[in-house]
This record gives sequence, C-alpha cells and structure tokens, in this order.
Amino acid sequence: MAASTLLYAQSGGVTAVINATAAGVIGEARRHKVKVLAARNGILGALREELIDTSKESAAAIAALAHTPGGAFGSCRVKLKSLEADRARYERLLEVLKAHGVRWFLYNGGNDSADTAWKVSQLAQAFGYPLTCVGVPKTIDNDLAVTDTCPGFGSAAKYTAVSVRECALDVAAMAETSTKVFVYEAMGRHAGWLAAAAGLAGTGPDQAPHLILFPERAYDEAAFLAQVDKVVKRVGYCVVVASEGIRSADGRFVADAGGGTDAFGHAQLGGVASYLAGKVKAALGYKVHWALPDYLQRSARHIASKTDWDQAQAVGKAAVQYALAGHNAVMPVIVRSADAPYRWKIAPAPLSKVANHEKTMPAGFIRKDGFGITERARRYLSPLIQGEAPLPYGRDGLPKYVELKNVAVKQKLPAWEG
Amino acid sequence: MAASTLLYAQSGGVTAVINATAAGVIGEARRHKVKVLAARNGILGALREELIDTSKESAAAIAALAHTPGGAFGSCRVKLKSLEADRARYERLLEVLKAHGVRWFLYNGGNDSADTAWKVSQLAQAFGYPLTCVGVPKTIDNDLAVTDTCPGFGSAAKYTAVSVRECALDVAAMAETSTKVFVYEAMGRHAGWLAAAAGLAGTGPDQAPHLILFPERAYDEAAFLAQVDKVVKRVGYCVVVASEGIRSADGRFVADAGGGTDAFGHAQLGGVASYLAGKVKAALGYKVHWALPDYLQRSARHIASKTDWDQAQAVGKAAVQYALAGHNAVMPVIVRSADAPYRWKIAPAPLSKVANHEKTMPAGFIRKDGFGITERARRYLSPLIQGEAPLPYGRDGLPKYVELKNVAVKQKLPAWEG
Repeated sequence: MAASTLLYAQSGGVTAVINATAAGVIGEARRHKVKVLAARNGILGALREELIDTSKESAAAIAALAHTPGGAFGSCRVKLKSLEADRARYERLLEVLKAHGVRWFLYNGGNDSADTAWKVSQLAQAFGYPLTCVGVPKTIDNDLAVTDTCPGFGSAAKYTAVSVRECALDVAAMAETSTKVFVYEAMGRHAGWLAAAAGLAGTGPDQAPHLILFPERAYDEAAFLAQVDKVVKRVGYCVVVASEGIRSADGRFVADAGGGTDAFGHAQLGGVASYLAGKVKAALGYKVHWALPDYLQRSARHIASKTDWDQAQAVGKAAVQYALAGHNAVMPVIVRSADAPYRWKIAPAPLSKVANHEKTMPAGFIRKDGFGITERARRYLSPLIQGEAPLPYGRDGLPKYVELKNVAVKQKLPAWEG
Repeated sequence: MAASTLLYAQSGGVTAVINATAAGVIGEARRHKVKVLAARNGILGALREELIDTSKESAAAIAALAHTPGGAFGSCRVKLKSLEADRARYERLLEVLKAHGVRWFLYNGGNDSADTAWKVSQLAQAFGYPLTCVGVPKTIDNDLAVTDTCPGFGSAAKYTAVSVRECALDVAAMAETSTKVFVYEAMGRHAGWLAAAAGLAGTGPDQAPHLILFPERAYDEAAFLAQVDKVVKRVGYCVVVASEGIRSADGRFVADAGGGTDAFGHAQLGGVASYLAGKVKAALGYKVHWALPDYLQRSARHIASKTDWDQAQAVGKAAVQYALAGHNAVMPVIVRSADAPYRWKIAPAPLSKVANHEKTMPAGFIRKDGFGITERARRYLSPLIQGEAPLPYGRDGLPKYVELKNVAVKQKLPAWEG
C-alpha cells in the first residue's frame, strides 16, 4: 500500500473543463510522485470502494483529458447530510480512505461538495486520522462564494454569448417573413449568471439579446409581453434569453419539467422557453421559435473559454500543492486583481467560508428595468469568456476526446450496504 | 446605369455559410468588374425594389462576410407560384431587373428558389429580356437533387455530431444518479439528414447516439421505448437523436409546435424531443433531459465544417462564372469523385433537374433495425464535416462577425402594391 495516496472525486453536474481540473490534479501529483486514485461516480465510488487507479493512464491520455468535456471518472448527485444524520456514510468513507492509505482527499464540486469535504476533514480530525481535505471549485452556475468565478462557468458563458450572437443573426435575416421572436433558455437554478453572460453577445438596446429574464427579478408577464412587442416594433425582431429559474411574484417557478426534484432536493426545471414562446404567440401573434440547449451548454468544450480552461487547470494544480503542504479544509479560489486586462491568481480560502453559501448576482449587475445587464456586470463577465481554449481535431472532423481506461483498484473491504 | 449589373438574393432559412457564398459571389464579380446588387430580404426586396449596393462595402467587410453566419442582406420565406398564378409578381420582378440594368440574377436557396430562378429565366426569355439566371445551392436540409451535398448542411452536421458527442460525455458521467436518457432534437422536415449526421458522433452499439429516429421510418412508440430500456440496461444511459419530422404510421407528425404552417405551406414543427422525453419518463421512469438547439444548429459558424465552407464559397464563385458565360437556368452543384480522401468539383446542372425535387436519404443509409446509420451513410457523411473553418475572434472572446452597411440603391419605380 502506497503511503502517499491522494483520492480525487468529481461531484454534481459536470462541465466542459472539470476534466481539465482533473488533469491539473493528476499532472501535479505525478510531479510529486503522489499516486492518484479517482472515485468512480464521485462520492458514491468512495463509499462503494469503487476506485480507479489513474497511474494506469499514459501521459498522453492525461494531456487529452485536459481538453475532454464531461466527467472522466463519473460524477454523481449525492449529498451527504450532517455528521449526525449521515454518520454511517462518513465513517464508511474514512474506512475506505484508510484501507487505501489515502492521506489527501480532493473533492471537486460546488457548494454541497465543499460542505462534504469540510465535514470529512472534521470527522477525520475527530478520529485522529491524518487526512488533508481540499475542496476544488467547479460549477457552471457560478454561485460559489469567495472565488471570483467558478471553473466551468466561463466556458458555459462563452457558449451562451456566442450562440446567442449567432442565432440572433439568423433571426435578424428571417424576421421580415418568418420568426420575429426567439427565446433562448439558459441554465441557472437560482442565480442568473449564465443568462447575464448572454448579455455579452451585444451592446446597445437594438442588439440581441434584447431582453434577459433573471431569476433575481419576479417574472411579470404583462411587462414582459409589452417589452417584446416594443422591441419587435422598433427592431423588427426580438431575442429573449430566459433563465430556467425565473419565478413569478409568488415565488413559483414559471415552468417546471414534470415537477420532480433531484437528489439534492432541488426542483428539476425546464421548459421556460417553450412556456414564454407560447405566451408570446398567443398574446402578440408573432411567429416564435425557442431553443433549449440543456447539457450542450455545459459540455461544449469546442467553444470553451481559454481563461476558464486555464483557471480549471490552475485550481487542480493548486489543490494538490495545498494538500501536500497540509493546508486542511481549504479550497483554491480565484482572486481577481484587475478587470481589463484581467489579472487573477489562485489563493486558498477556508472551506467553512465557501460551504453552503450561494453567491447571487449583485443587484448592480441587473439593469434598472430588469431586462438586461449593466456596465458593471459586463466588466465582471467579459474577461471570463476571453480566449479560445485550444482543441485538437481528428481527420474525421471531430474533437479528439479521450476515453480513459479507468482501471479498478482491487477492493479491500466488505461490500458496502449503505 | 451600369450595363453590367448582377442581382444576388438569399432565400429561405439561412445557414452558417450562406454568407460565404455571398462573399464568393461578390469577390468573383469584383474581379470581373461586375456590380453586385443584393436584394433586401430576398425576393421580397427584388419585388419591392429594395436593393443594396454591395460596392459600398470594403474588401475587408466582404472578407469578414465569408465567416459571418445568418443572411447579411436578409432572406425570406416567400414562394412564387406558377407563372400563370403569380404573373403580376414575375412581371414586377422583371421590371425591377430592367430598371436597374440587371443582366444576371443569382438566387441562393433550396428547391423552391431553384424553381423560382428557373421560372424567371423562362419569363425573361418569353419577354425577350436578356437575363441569365443561376440558382445557387443552400440548405441545411441537404435535400437538393443532383448535388452531392448542399452548402450549409455540412456545418449543421458538424455542429450536430460534435454536440451529441459532447453531451453524451456529460450524460455518461452523471447517469449513475441522474439523467439516464437524453433526447436531442435535430432539424429536418422530411429527410433525416441531420439526424443521420449525429450518427458520426460514435461508432459501435454502445457509443452515443444509441438510437436515431428518422422521418423516413414510421415512429413506433412501443419499439422505441423497448430499445431505450434495453440500451439503458446495457450501457447505463441512452442518448437519442430524433428528427423533428418523425411521423407515426398514419403519417401524422409526432409533435407539432402549435400546428401552424410557414409561408411555403410546410408544417411548422418542434417539440419532438420533449414529447419523447415525456413518454420515456412516463413509461420507463428514467430521469430524462432533452435539448432543442433549433436555430443554433444552422447558425453555429463557430463550429463550421471547412469542407462546407469551401464549398459554399466555391458555388458562389462558380455561379458568377456561369452567369457571365451566359449559362442560363443552371446551378453550380457539387460532384463527388471519391469518399476518402474526399474529392469534389463544381459543375453546372440544369435548374429543371434541381427544382422541386426533394432528395431523400437512400434506404441503404438507415440500419435495418431503423435506429442508426449504416457504413454507407458514414462514408457519405463523414467527409462533409471534415476540417475546421477558420474564424477570427476578438479580444472580447467573441467571433468577429461583420455587420454590413447595406446602403440602399435609389428607387426608380413606383412603389409596389403586390
């Protein structure tokens, strides 16, 4: 059993660059001769003792991992509760870590994962097990506290801004006799970060997107329809970007795809764009089209932001450095020192400050009328989509994404009945 | 009045590369000192005498036009009927052409536009007006007869294959605890060309897309659901690509967005993916997500195929050469001489052979079980998405798309009351 083993796990929704973070982790660990195990399907794999030996992957495979979207070892939507409520699972986790000589645990995810990593570090301390826990930021929702931005967001933001600019050119060309209103649905459960990023697609009131609907503002149907009509009459067409999480004044989500909830207890959304399109057609009679890019927006590595890609790799590398230096219960976060040109560095932040906080958009980012972004938002968002992350293509015209071997580590414990 | 004037008009749904064709037309015409007018909003602009003087655009603007999606002069969904039924409009068109000394008319579109260009050429001949009419191919639907492929299709196909590969990596990573079935809706009114292109995203039965639904095959719900369940049980998840145009055995579209029809009398579709997702959820209980890229798939210049882009420019250039050489009522089409490596050339085809024919997918392109593509389809499709069309980006992280000045030509005729 290697005494210098690090366990890396991915958590929650994957992104276009979470594997870049994984590649950053593995590359840096290799430089320090540290063995990296990866949990299959996130924390579930750690509980089930389904571990992957990343040392079986070639250097070329890890290099390709850095530009492959999705989550190469699998991720999951499983949230551990409090230490009291979920004691059996936390203890099983420690057992697995001990059995495989894991001294460093890196958990790559959002708010919930930062919380889990923090609790694991507390439990290890209580049990006297020498474990260093480091959270690694990731989420296209951009809702992590402390950090300037979250790896994954910048690429989804770039996808959004580019796609909205492109489809707006399409709508503009056809509006005279065809579609006059186009509705684009952006992800974002409680914060309108991605919808806001669409605002980078244009400048001035006549450039798309003409209207953005944020979850931070109550959806007012009459006001929305009046705005759409005004824009169509002035510009000839109207491009609307709506966050999936918009709610009416009574707090209810405007559209709910089936009304289910995911394993984190979050409502599972969808269908806002088609709802709005139906309203526009019924009330104003305009021909309407809508787009729901769904997972495309968070997996589109082909239009990833170079800034985001660099940061995703940097947090992975820093996480290993912090772990090896014994910085327990921290997360490498991105610290901005200038907007233009964008300057940033990585610094450690206590997990306690990140866990379970949700960063909402500052009120000063949304225009007074509620339908667009301010200059302040633009200054914040613009650097995050800058640069085009390099991507090798095959002769077949498809990106060269890697599929890892994911060789399983021999199990040492009885099967988990959790 | 210049005696050597060419009129160029775009028609029908725009694409990621129709402006590349426009740039090819303008560039070649400039080399021959021919003045190019463009009709604003397609044939409507020609009827309304709303013409644009492209000589007011700089060489840099025309170079940028070649990589700008959408339709720079506007397009429209207006179909002229037979010479008898629409005589007044055809005659008005000739009046406008005469008034502006137009000797060459280039109509850039699909089946309907080829038909219109053909009829205009017949009428001009009947009236003794010396006009050379050339159709220029364009459609993401790939349903034009004679030509190997249609400019616009290859880029939409590349978008489709890349997007499906990317979101499949996302779904694969999350399937253990989250989405198990993902449905991607591809454009394609009557032919499943784009859905088929998704098949390039993977090889073998376990790689996404696992199931493709073609309009060429009757949609059989029980068989579809059985296949989805089988794939989920075998692979762990299932990625479905469905053409918007799939119909049940009785010939009805599976889903119809509002039930309207466009100006061509074609049913306006949408919502197949959400329909299928609902069925999967209800019948099998799996968590399902779906994506409807809609206009994004035909405007995504950022992931355009180099092959497609080259062909789009080539047909524009050839159209001018044919026109100047007096080849009347023809269309430059793409002729394939080899699959791998792909070899193609441009050759003229009579408009009469292109107009009003719809190229459907050969039966040999769809797998026997109806849910995937054959090797023959792969050999045909693969070259069309090869190569990445270059695209300059600004420091803001967005593609450098151009907005033309579109300077109006002074009108010479009384307003049109058509």
